[in-house]
Amino acid sequence: MIVNMSSTATQEQIDHVMERIKECGFLPHLIKGAERTVIGVVGKNRGRRNELEALRVAPGVEDLISISQPFTLVSLQLQTQRTIVNVKDVRIGGPELVVMAGPCSVESREQLMETARAVKAAGATILRGGAYKPRTSPYDFQGLGLEGLKILKEASEETGLPIVTEVMGIEDLDAVVEYADMMQVGARNMQNYPLLRRLATVPRPVLLKRGPSATIKEWLLAAEYLLSGGNPNVVLCERGIKTFDSELRNTLDLVGVALAKELCHLPIVVDPSHATGRRSLVPAASCAAVAIGADGLIIEVHPCPERALSDGPQSLDLPGFAAMMQTLQSAMAVAAAGR
Amino acid sequence: MIVNMSSTATQEQIDHVMERIKECGFLPHLIKGAERTVIGVVGKNRGRRNELEALRVAPGVEDLISISQPFTLVSLQLQTQRTIVNVKDVRIGGPELVVMAGPCSVESREQLMETARAVKAAGATILRGGAYKPRTSPYDFQGLGLEGLKILKEASEETGLPIVTEVMGIEDLDAVVEYADMMQVGARNMQNYPLLRRLATVPRPVLLKRGPSATIKEWLLAAEYLLSGGNPNVVLCERGIKTFDSELRNTLDLVGVALAKELCHLPIVVDPSHATGRRSLVPAASCAAVAIGADGLIIEVHPCPERALSDGPQSLDLPGFAAMMQTLQSAMAVAAAGR
Amino acid sequence: MIVNMSSTATQEQIDHVMERIKECGFLPHLIKGAERTVIGVVGKNRGRRNELEALRVAPGVEDLISISQPFTLVSLQLQTQRTIVNVKDVRIGGPELVVMAGPCSVESREQLMETARAVKAAGATILRGGAYKPRTSPYDFQGLGLEGLKILKEASEETGLPIVTEVMGIEDLDAVVEYADMMQVGARNMQNYPLLRRLATVPRPVLLKRGPSATIKEWLLAAEYLLSGGNPNVVLCERGIKTFDSELRNTLDLVGVALAKELCHLPIVVDPSHATGRRSLVPAASCAAVAIGADGLIIEVHPCPERALSDGPQSLDLPGFAAMMQTLQSAMAVAAAGR
Amino acid sequence: MIVNMSSTATQEQIDHVMERIKECGFLPHLIKGAERTVIGVVGKNRGRRNELEALRVAPGVEDLISISQPFTLVSLQLQTQRTIVNVKDVRIGGPELVVMAGPCSVESREQLMETARAVKAAGATILRGGAYKPRTSPYDFQGLGLEGLKILKEASEETGLPIVTEVMGIEDLDAVVEYADMMQVGARNMQNYPLLRRLATVPRPVLLKRGPSATIKEWLLAAEYLLSGGNPNVVLCERGIKTFDSELRNTLDLVGVALAKELCHLPIVVDPSHATGRRSLVPAASCAAVAIGADGLIIEVHPCPERALSDGPQSLDLPGFAAMMQTLQSAMAVAAAGR
Repeated sequence: MIVNMSSTATQEQIDHVMERIKECGFLPHLIKGAERTVIGVVGKNRGRRNELEALRVAPGVEDLISISQPFTLVSLQLQTQRTIVNVKDVRIGGPELVVMAGPCSVESREQLMETARAVKAAGATILRGGAYKPRTSPYDFQGLGLEGLKILKEASEETGLPIVTEVMGIEDLDAVVEYADMMQVGARNMQNYPLLRRLATVPRPVLLKRGPSATIKEWLLAAEYLLSGGNPNVVLCERGIKTFDSELRNTLDLVGVALAKELCHLPIVVDPSHATGRRSLVPAASCAAVAIGADGLIIEVHPCPERALSDGPQSLDLPGFAAMMQTLQSAMAVAAAGR
Repeated sequence: MIVNMSSTATQEQIDHVMERIKECGFLPHLIKGAERTVIGVVGKNRGRRNELEALRVAPGVEDLISISQPFTLVSLQLQTQRTIVNVKDVRIGGPELVVMAGPCSVESREQLMETARAVKAAGATILRGGAYKPRTSPYDFQGLGLEGLKILKEASEETGLPIVTEVMGIEDLDAVVEYADMMQVGARNMQNYPLLRRLATVPRPVLLKRGPSATIKEWLLAAEYLLSGGNPNVVLCERGIKTFDSELRNTLDLVGVALAKELCHLPIVVDPSHATGRRSLVPAASCAAVAIGADGLIIEVHPCPERALSDGPQSLDLPGFAAMMQTLQSAMAVAAAGR
Repeated sequence: MIVNMSSTATQEQIDHVMERIKECGFLPHLIKGAERTVIGVVGKNRGRRNELEALRVAPGVEDLISISQPFTLVSLQLQTQRTIVNVKDVRIGGPELVVMAGPCSVESREQLMETARAVKAAGATILRGGAYKPRTSPYDFQGLGLEGLKILKEASEETGLPIVTEVMGIEDLDAVVEYADMMQVGARNMQNYPLLRRLATVPRPVLLKRGPSATIKEWLLAAEYLLSGGNPNVVLCERGIKTFDSELRNTLDLVGVALAKELCHLPIVVDPSHATGRRSLVPAASCAAVAIGADGLIIEVHPCPERALSDGPQSLDLPGFAAMMQTLQSAMAVAAAGR
Repeated sequence: MIVNMSSTATQEQIDHVMERIKECGFLPHLIKGAERTVIGVVGKNRGRRNELEALRVAPGVEDLISISQPFTLVSLQLQTQRTIVNVKDVRIGGPELVVMAGPCSVESREQLMETARAVKAAGATILRGGAYKPRTSPYDFQGLGLEGLKILKEASEETGLPIVTEVMGIEDLDAVVEYADMMQVGARNMQNYPLLRRLATVPRPVLLKRGPSATIKEWLLAAEYLLSGGNPNVVLCERGIKTFDSELRNTLDLVGVALAKELCHLPIVVDPSHATGRRSLVPAASCAAVAIGADGLIIEVHPCPERALSDGPQSLDLPGFAAMMQTLQSAMAVAAAGR
C-alpha cells in the first residue's frame, strides 16, 4: 500500500499518518518528492488492512494506492497449476472443451427429455436446465421448482449426463444438492455472500456466473469466498456485461476471460446465449470463446424456441445446436492443438 | 405489443404469427406498409404474455416491441396518490425531508451510541447502521451480526430513533424483523427474488436500494415483487450506478430519481455516501437530491472516519454532519415551498 | 510516479528499471516490502514523463502508478481563484446564475426571433441556437449554416443577448468567430484536438461540452489544450454521459460537476435538455444543477416542439420555459445564499 | 414508425396526431387496443421523417417507435454482396485475413524502417504508423506530422507495403492523401462529420474506427456519411468500447463485430492493441477476432516497447509479433475453411 499525501500536507499530518501505520502493525517508508510526499507501507498483516484503508480520509492524505491484488487463493501466483474441476466424470479445465447445453427452464418432462437426448447426441457432456428461475418480473414464469429438479434427475439417469442447475437461495440448497451435480450461482447472485458461504460447504462443484456489472476483480473475490470457505471446485462463467449499447442483451467480455485466466487458476466457461440474447450470434460467439481459451461453453437449447416460456430468442433449436457443434469441432481441434 | 415482421417475411410466415397470436388469446391487427408488415396485438391476457415474447424468434419476425410498462402495482397510472411509508412515527413521502444517518457498520456500543446521539441532535430522524455487512472481499470486516442488532436496538431505545438496517438473507430475516423498524435490501440484493418474496410478507417497511447496474424499470419491477407479494410499504433508494468513470465510487443518477417519480408512486430517498464514495461531495450531492425531489437522504456518519472498519472515506464526521444539516435547512425550506 | 515491480521481479530487472529512471532524468527511490519491491520516482521533468510511461512494459514491472493529476493550468491547486468568463457583458462563474436558452437548430428567422424575445423576457441572458448541426444520420437536417449565423446575429442585435453557437470544424471557424460571441465545442468534438488548438487562438470564450464517454480527467485535459494554447476563457458544460440505462438519452452526472469544481477553477454549466432528452425532466434537473453548484444552464426552447426539426422531445415550449424560470428563482436564491 | 398514444390520450389528441401524419405525407393506421391506441405510420418519405420524430412530444403521445434501420447504403439488405476494399493490391473483405501492423507513432526513420521490415517478414501486408497523433494530454508527444508521413512513404517504397495512417483534421487531409494509401479515422473522430464528408470525396479507402461509446448503429451511420457522400471503400474497425471495468484500457466488443456483419456489407477489422491496452492479451484477442469473422487485424508493434513514445504497454515487440503471426496461421486456416 502507498499513501499519497496531498501536496499541501503538513509535517504534522505526515507524522500522524506514519504513527497510525505503525499502530496497525506495518512499517512506514517515507519518500519526499519535488511536489509531494508518499509513504510506502511495508508488512503483511492482512487482518488489519481494513484499518489502513480508512487512512484515506486522514488529514493531509490525498489517496491510498493498493499495489497487490486483493485475492489470494484463486490467484495463479499462489497456485501455479490450473485447477481441473470434475463434475462426475466430466473434467472442466483440461484439454477437452466441455459443452453444457439444455433449455433455459425445465418446462415439462417431454421438453427436457427431448432436449437432453438431442444435446447428448450432438456432443454435449453436461445437461443444463433451470428449475428455480430468477425473473425480472414477478409476473413471468418462475420455474417448476422441485418438480423441475426431479425431471432433470430423470434425464440425467437416462442419458448419463450430469446436471448443472441454478440455486437461488439457501432455502432451496438442500434440494438442489440432492438432485444436481453442479450448483450454478446466477449472475444476479454473484455477490449474494450468505449463499456463497453456504455453497463453500457443500460437496458439489460450483458454476459462478459473473455479475452483469462485476469487474474481473469483484468476480474473483466472489470466487475467493468459495475457496476460502472450503470449496475449491469452482468454475467461472462469463455471460456478458452491461454496457451503453443495448442493441444486444449484454456485451460479451471475451478479453475478460483471457484476463481472468492470467490472474487465476480456475477454469472458465462462456455463456454466449445470455451474452448475446440472439440465437443467430451464438455460434460465432462460441467459436471466439474457444479461440480465446475458454474451457467450456454453456448453451441454451430448446425444441421449439418460439414456444419457450423463457429466453426463446436466444435459444438454439435442436438442429441449430447440432450444426453449431459440427462447426465447433474444427475450433476445438485448433484449441486442443494450441494447448 | 407490436410484432415487426422482417421486410422479407413471406405471407405464410405472417399467417403463422397471426395464428399464434390468436392461440395465445389475443387479437392480431395487420398493417401492411410500403416496406414491411407489422402486426398489432390487442388484448390483456397478462398470464400468456410470456408466450407472445417467444414469437420474437418465429420465422419472419424481426422484432417484438412492447408498448406498455411491465409493472403495474407500483405505477402512478394505477395509483395516482403518492404512497407515504411510516417507519414508526416517521413519515417518508410526505412534505418533510427524512434524514437517516449513522455509521456504515456497527463497530461497538460506544461508537454507535455516540453517533446516534449526535445525528439525532443534528436533526436526523432515523438511525442507520449495518450489523450484517456484504463485503466484496471475504477478508474484510463482515459486521457484528446479532450483537450489532442488539446495539442498534439499545440506541433506538435511548434516542427514540427508529432503526433501518440491512437484511442480507432469509436466514437472518427473523432476527432483523425483531430488532429493526425498517428492512434494508442492499444494492447487490435488489434482484434476490427469494429474499424479496419473503420481505413481502413481513410487517416492516422495506428500503429497496437500486442495484449498481439496474435500469429504472428493473428497479421498479423489484419493487413490484414486494407489492405483489403483499407489502405496500416500500421506499426506493438511489445509491449510484456503475459507469465508465471510475474516479468516484459510483455515478449518482439524480435524474433517475425524477424519472422514477414520474413512473411510480413510491417514496424515493438518495444515498449520497455510497454514490460518491467521497466525504467532500456528500453535502453538495445531498442538496441536489433535495432539489430534484427526493423524499429523504441516507447518510453515513462516523465519530472518527479515519478509524472506521468500513466506508471511512465516504463517512462524514459528527461536526461535518451537523454542518451539512444546517446547509440542508435552506434546501429543505425551498423544497417544502415547492411542493 | 510509483513503479510497482512484480513479486517475481529479479534483482537485474529492478536494477534495469532504476537505471532507466535515472536516464530519463529522475531519481529512483527503492522500497523493499515483504512481498514485492516498489520504486518511487522523484523529480518533475514533465517533458520526459512519456518515456517513464513506457516502463510499464519493462521486464519485471507489474504496474505504474501516477500520483499527480495530469492537468496543470486548469487546476485549482495552481490557480486558487475561480475564473470568471465574460461573454460580452454576461459574467459566467460569478454569483449570478447564467441561463442560456434557445432552439436546438435555427430553422427560420421567425422561429428564432420569436424564441429569442421569449427567452429574454423570461430571464435568459445568452441566446443559444445551432447553425451547423452534428447529426448522427446524414439524412437528418444539418442546419442552415451561414444563413443560420446571420439570423442569430440579427436576433442578438434586436434583443441584446450574446450568442453561443457550435463550431463543428476549422473550416467554419472564421464565420462563427465573426457572428458569434461564444464558441461551443460539441460533445462529439471534445477530443477534436486540431479544433481545440485553433480555438485556443481565437478572441472568443469557449463552451466546452463534455464528451458522452469522457471521464472528468479527459474533460479537464481537453480544457488544458485550450488554456495551454492561450485561451483562458473556457466554460465547461456537463450534458450527460452514456451509461447502461437507455431509458433516457443520457445520464446527467451532477456529482461530476461538483467533482470538477473541486479539481479546476473554470466555471461549469449544465445542459439538462441533452442530458435527459425529455422535456418533462428539464425543470427538476435544472433545479438540481443549481443546487449542486452549477454556474449556469443551457436550455433548449422551441415555439412549437412538436414541429421542431431537431430535438423536439427535449425542448421546452415558450410558456414551459417561462414557468421553469419562475421555479428557478428560489433555487437561484438558495444558490446565491450558499456562495 | 409506430406512434404509441398514452392510455389517457383523448380522441382530440389522437385526431391531431393523425392529421399531422397526413400533413407530413404519410398514411396513419389506427389500432385501438384494450388499454391504449397505437397508430402505425405507412409511407417512405425519408426527407420528412425528421418532422414525424417531433411528434414524440405532441399532446397525448407516449412514445414513438421506429421499426426500420436508420441506415441504407451500408445495409446488407440493400446490397447483399459483401464489399471488398482494395488498398493498393491488398484486398480486405475477401478470403485472406489482412494484418496491418506497425508502431503507434512514427518516432524516427530507424524505428519505422526496422519495424516495417520485421512486420513484412512476419506476414503483415499493410504498414500502420501515426504521424498525426490525437493525445489526451497536450503535454504528450503529438507525432512528427509531415515528417512522419515522409518516413512512412519511404518505408512503403522499400517494403512494398501500403500505408494506413490517421488523418486528424481537414487541414492535414491533402498531405495524408498524398503520402498514404488508406485514411484512418480515429475513434475520437468517428462522429467528426465535416471530416467524414470530406473523406467521402477523396480517392482513398477509409478505415473507420468505432468511437469508444458509439453504438453499432451510430457506427454504421458514420459509415453511411462516407458512402452517401460518394466513397464506397470503407473498412470498419472495432477497437474496444468504454465500460465500467477499467482494469483494461477498453472492452473489446467482438460480438459487436458479428452483429455489424449481420447488418452491413462492409469489411471489419479488429484492433486488439487499443482494445486491451496490454501486450500479453493481444495474441488471444487476435485469435478470437479471427474466429468470430473479422476480415483483418491492426496491431501495434515496436522494436523496443519500453522506450516507445506512445502506447508502449500495448505494443508487441518484433519477436512477439512474429510469434503471434505463427499462432494465427492455424486460426486463419480455420477461418478460411469456415468461409
